[in-house]
Amino acid sequence: MRKISESTVRRLSLYLRFLEQFDAQGHTTISSAELARRGATTPAQVRKDLSFFGSFGKRGLGYSVPQLTGRLRDILGLKRTYRVVLVGAGRIGGALAQYPGFRQRGFHVAAIYDKEPRKIGSRWNGLDLRKEPTDIAILVTPAEAAQEVTDQLVQSGVKAILNFAPIRLAVPADVAVKSVNMALELETLSFALANR
Amino acid sequence: MRKISESTVRRLSLYLRFLEQFDAQGHTTISSAELARRGATTPAQVRKDLSFFGSFGKRGLGYSVPQLTGRLRDILGLKRTYRVVLVGAGRIGGALAQYPGFRQRGFHVAAIYDKEPRKIGSRWNGLDLRKEPTDIAILVTPAEAAQEVTDQLVQSGVKAILNFAPIRLAVPADVAVKSVNMALELETLSFALANR
Repeated sequence: MRKISESTVRRLSLYLRFLEQFDAQGHTTISSAELARRGATTPAQVRKDLSFFGSFGKRGLGYSVPQLTGRLRDILGLKRTYRVVLVGAGRIGGALAQYPGFRQRGFHVAAIYDKEPRKIGSRWNGLDLRKEPTDIAILVTPAEAAQEVTDQLVQSGVKAILNFAPIRLAVPADVAVKSVNMALELETLSFALANR
Repeated sequence: MRKISESTVRRLSLYLRFLEQFDAQGHTTISSAELARRGATTPAQVRKDLSFFGSFGKRGLGYSVPQLTGRLRDILGLKRTYRVVLVGAGRIGGALAQYPGFRQRGFHVAAIYDKEPRKIGSRWNGLDLRKEPTDIAILVTPAEAAQEVTDQLVQSGVKAILNFAPIRLAVPADVAVKSVNMALELETLSFALANR
């Protein structure tokens, strides 16, 4: 498959959410213009995004909602469930562990580790993920601990990490890392306020 | 000023973090190669990013750490503090309210609103932000409530919103919105796992 940019993947996720709402409302077809509105993009971009994955739409008729929904779930790897572990049981970690949006999408938080055993009865330097293979790890440790924990996760065979620690992680090329930094998100807004 | 892309702004934030660490270690100059390593980019990209804002570096000497730090804080609008309100006192909202990374960067969570008054003693349909002007709102409400709350925030003069609700918000052109969707972040990872 051709290399797909992260911004394309994000738009596909948004299209999927809109399709699911549209389906719940009983609609069976949808136009690229309606999808574009949801993805904050243009109808031409929608057609280009979807053309990566073969032809779906019929000119003048739009896309079949159930067919495109199924195809997008397939493309995004959502036709299965994922076993997720969370490392770091601080406030953000604890909140994420119970986030309903994860389970709805098939992301099951199966374990939480922390270096304070009293918090959850398990230590991250006793991380043993080999017993039950883990698909995705969510890292919510302090910056100082993040690389060491990552090395352990990678050694255990984890191939995807969602990183909330404010540090850039070093990982092998076959491990996918996506970083979320709350303060950095606010800085894109302070930049916008300062440069109006 | 020329239009700066969000990805440039994010790299500037990363450069700033690295400069602060470098400064704490007592270094006074830094090369574009070192900044590139931190920003997961190339030295040429660093020079291009910084050239947007005038000339900083000296060929062969690199950048002055204190001078570039000050300039980046200025560009990112970080030479002042921001008054932040948080709407939605659920688990994620509660965790964010106490996130230390915000205060360190000058983002002060001054108020939390929720529709359940017993949670915090204040209702979001009683939002009164006019008393004390608010710079940035963090929206952590359910999807159903998000647009209505946004309309109230905008009416109250809020010009920047960090949105955690899984919905695309409609706002006037002069209001900056940045959305964070946790499930969508995980989907970029499930896509990576499904398409290796």
